[in-house]
Amino acid sequence: MKEAAKICKDASRKLAALGTEQKDKALQFIKDILKSHSNEIISANNQDMQRSEKENLAAPLLKRLKFDSSKIDQVCLGIDSLKDLKDPVGKVLQATELDQGLELYKVACPIGVIGMIFESRPDALVQIATLCLKSGNGVILKGGSEAMETNKILVELIAQATEKAGIPTGWIQLAQSREEVREMLALDEYIDLIIPRGSNEFVKFIMDNSSIPVLGHADGICHLYVDEKADLDMAINVTVDSKTQYVAVCNALETLLVHSKVAEALLPRLKTALEAKNTELRGCSRTCDIIQIKAASDQDWATEYLDYILSIKIVDSMDEAINHIHRYGSGHTESIITADSVTADNFMNRVDSGDLFWNCSTRFSDGFRYGLGAEVGISTNRIHARGPVGMEGLMIYKWKLYGKGQIVEDYSSGKKSFTHRSMGV
Amino acid sequence: MKEAAKICKDASRKLAALGTEQKDKALQFIKDILKSHSNEIISANNQDMQRSEKENLAAPLLKRLKFDSSKIDQVCLGIDSLKDLKDPVGKVLQATELDQGLELYKVACPIGVIGMIFESRPDALVQIATLCLKSGNGVILKGGSEAMETNKILVELIAQATEKAGIPTGWIQLAQSREEVREMLALDEYIDLIIPRGSNEFVKFIMDNSSIPVLGHADGICHLYVDEKADLDMAINVTVDSKTQYVAVCNALETLLVHSKVAEALLPRLKTALEAKNTELRGCSRTCDIIQIKAASDQDWATEYLDYILSIKIVDSMDEAINHIHRYGSGHTESIITADSVTADNFMNRVDSGDLFWNCSTRFSDGFRYGLGAEVGISTNRIHARGPVGMEGLMIYKWKLYGKGQIVEDYSSGKKSFTHRSMGV
Repeated sequence: MKEAAKICKDASRKLAALGTEQKDKALQFIKDILKSHSNEIISANNQDMQRSEKENLAAPLLKRLKFDSSKIDQVCLGIDSLKDLKDPVGKVLQATELDQGLELYKVACPIGVIGMIFESRPDALVQIATLCLKSGNGVILKGGSEAMETNKILVELIAQATEKAGIPTGWIQLAQSREEVREMLALDEYIDLIIPRGSNEFVKFIMDNSSIPVLGHADGICHLYVDEKADLDMAINVTVDSKTQYVAVCNALETLLVHSKVAEALLPRLKTALEAKNTELRGCSRTCDIIQIKAASDQDWATEYLDYILSIKIVDSMDEAINHIHRYGSGHTESIITADSVTADNFMNRVDSGDLFWNCSTRFSDGFRYGLGAEVGISTNRIHARGPVGMEGLMIYKWKLYGKGQIVEDYSSGKKSFTHRSMGV
Repeated sequence: MKEAAKICKDASRKLAALGTEQKDKALQFIKDILKSHSNEIISANNQDMQRSEKENLAAPLLKRLKFDSSKIDQVCLGIDSLKDLKDPVGKVLQATELDQGLELYKVACPIGVIGMIFESRPDALVQIATLCLKSGNGVILKGGSEAMETNKILVELIAQATEKAGIPTGWIQLAQSREEVREMLALDEYIDLIIPRGSNEFVKFIMDNSSIPVLGHADGICHLYVDEKADLDMAINVTVDSKTQYVAVCNALETLLVHSKVAEALLPRLKTALEAKNTELRGCSRTCDIIQIKAASDQDWATEYLDYILSIKIVDSMDEAINHIHRYGSGHTESIITADSVTADNFMNRVDSGDLFWNCSTRFSDGFRYGLGAEVGISTNRIHARGPVGMEGLMIYKWKLYGKGQIVEDYSSGKKSFTHRSMGV
């Protein structure tokens, strides 16, 4: 693993300096090879499917593991849209004249080597590998062991295609065993960023056990606050969508906070609407005084159900709602329903989460819906990248200073002085 | 410590939502109180100086510890220029219409709570505290125990001044003991970023012992590569400045790489120039064949001397120079001297360091010289912020989505579709 990581680091440094044309050519070759070798890919996937069925892998996981010709078509479409995206490498982020003939540029560049740890889905492998390629990063992939054969052939084919396009050998590596994950987490000399995708426990394990920065999120305990000035039809509509449109995801609603002034008018109607969607409600004692539902425990406020369950709490003010969110939330996504724009701004400025919404569903918190072009993941980090993260999450910058022999002593002694003139970027 | 960090976190969330005017007023009050209480500050500093002298603190550290009226004037000037800087909070970084009446904004906001650990200099305390205030961050400061009394009164006065300006109490906290530093490093629930300033060992200790992201650098092993097409007068001039203009800093030159084609012409002249500055030279065997100097060991290439010592290695190509830099460098600052712009671009694109210079001194790698307005530190990190870091290193962003009741189901079902139109930012 250490040797593989070292090779990947070396390759990534060469890859970082390659031009857009060469990278796009490599993307095209990947697409071609996936199409021309689709039978081999499908047969490798069949092996994984058969073994996993025997091992009684759960049905939803089996479904995610399946990689058939329609999935191959899908990832190829993804490669096409990635080719259309602008190359993020080399973008000038800032330009300053320090003095005449001494010009400073802040230029976007790849981070280096990305360690990607994910569960069953082989389409995620192709997506991440091509994202790293386009952004000039090396990548070490660790997929679930259930997808072993599929992952192996996919990485082999991608490596073959990119080598043909002149991409440095070794830029893509596959880690196979669980033991290798442990090793990866300690290789901070070679791996610059780890992106884990999977269950909360899995991500939390990675975060707690690595000295390498981790981009991602564990919990997603999202809140919707219905203000006293809310349009109640809208509140019901948005709550139902936030909770039930797709329950198994991090941006689904878990706790509804309702201003006491509208609770009596809202809650009975909301109960009807959510029960029609087979959603179990759990409420604070004041909620249970208005509608007959199960009582929520303290544990409920801190739980990401990922299921057809919603906890409801009545609050007497927005301050109380915000305090609840800061106490129990995970800094992911919170929405407010109100007709008052001042209240909305106040909520969005004061709540300390990555994504703050006014009068819309929490389910919009997503890289595709945000129009980011490609989604690397969703981050609840407080540095680097936050919320849905596009390709820019795989980028950092370097400073380039162009001189004509200047020395610092001339500026320290007062012989020369800095102009510090912005050059318009 | 945990309680203090919790209070700081709560206060930081309120501080994050305050306007520029209030923060600038608080900065003014800090300046006023430092001036009006300068006698008390100086007398507290005298206690620290006397105790430290008795404890035989080294002379350079004593000098840095001293906080007299001219130092107070200096930090007040710093506060003035900080007031002049634009408030980074609330800056719109990106704006996208997702659909008609559904608008997404990426808005700069403070990170949260900054843990600042530094050594003797009390002026650093004022500088960092005011930077955090302007950028809307809470701060927990841990200064050197030698500056105990000075730090205590400074934090008390700053807290008093900012409270008068309506800044939430508790936004600034002082940690006192070494034990508290250990505690700080584990408080990832409340502290979002640690910025250590001090010796390499100190910073390395912090980096190795915290689960909180750390912004900074340990080693600064900077290289200058003299290409075969270099102007040799320029090469000598820039080498002397890079090495000797100020040796005790991270951006000073430690290793010179010389193309073999110019070595014989360059090295004797360089020896004369550097020995005139009392600089000891250590060379690879080929260098020692040309000039009579001490032989460099492998250890030399990996050493940040921070002293009047320079190691010199002859290389046969730029590739060899780059490989040396990647093997022994710390990713800080490297410069190339060449008359050939293609070679320079090649070097700057391929070398994997935060700061790449063409025909100028490594000593330019600095927030003030870059015109950043304020320097938070220099980072060799690969995410978030790299190279000299200004106030933007204390910032992250949040996403704000303004809707009119939109739900995701309408877009999933195909009833509506996204426009994803950039709104010009």
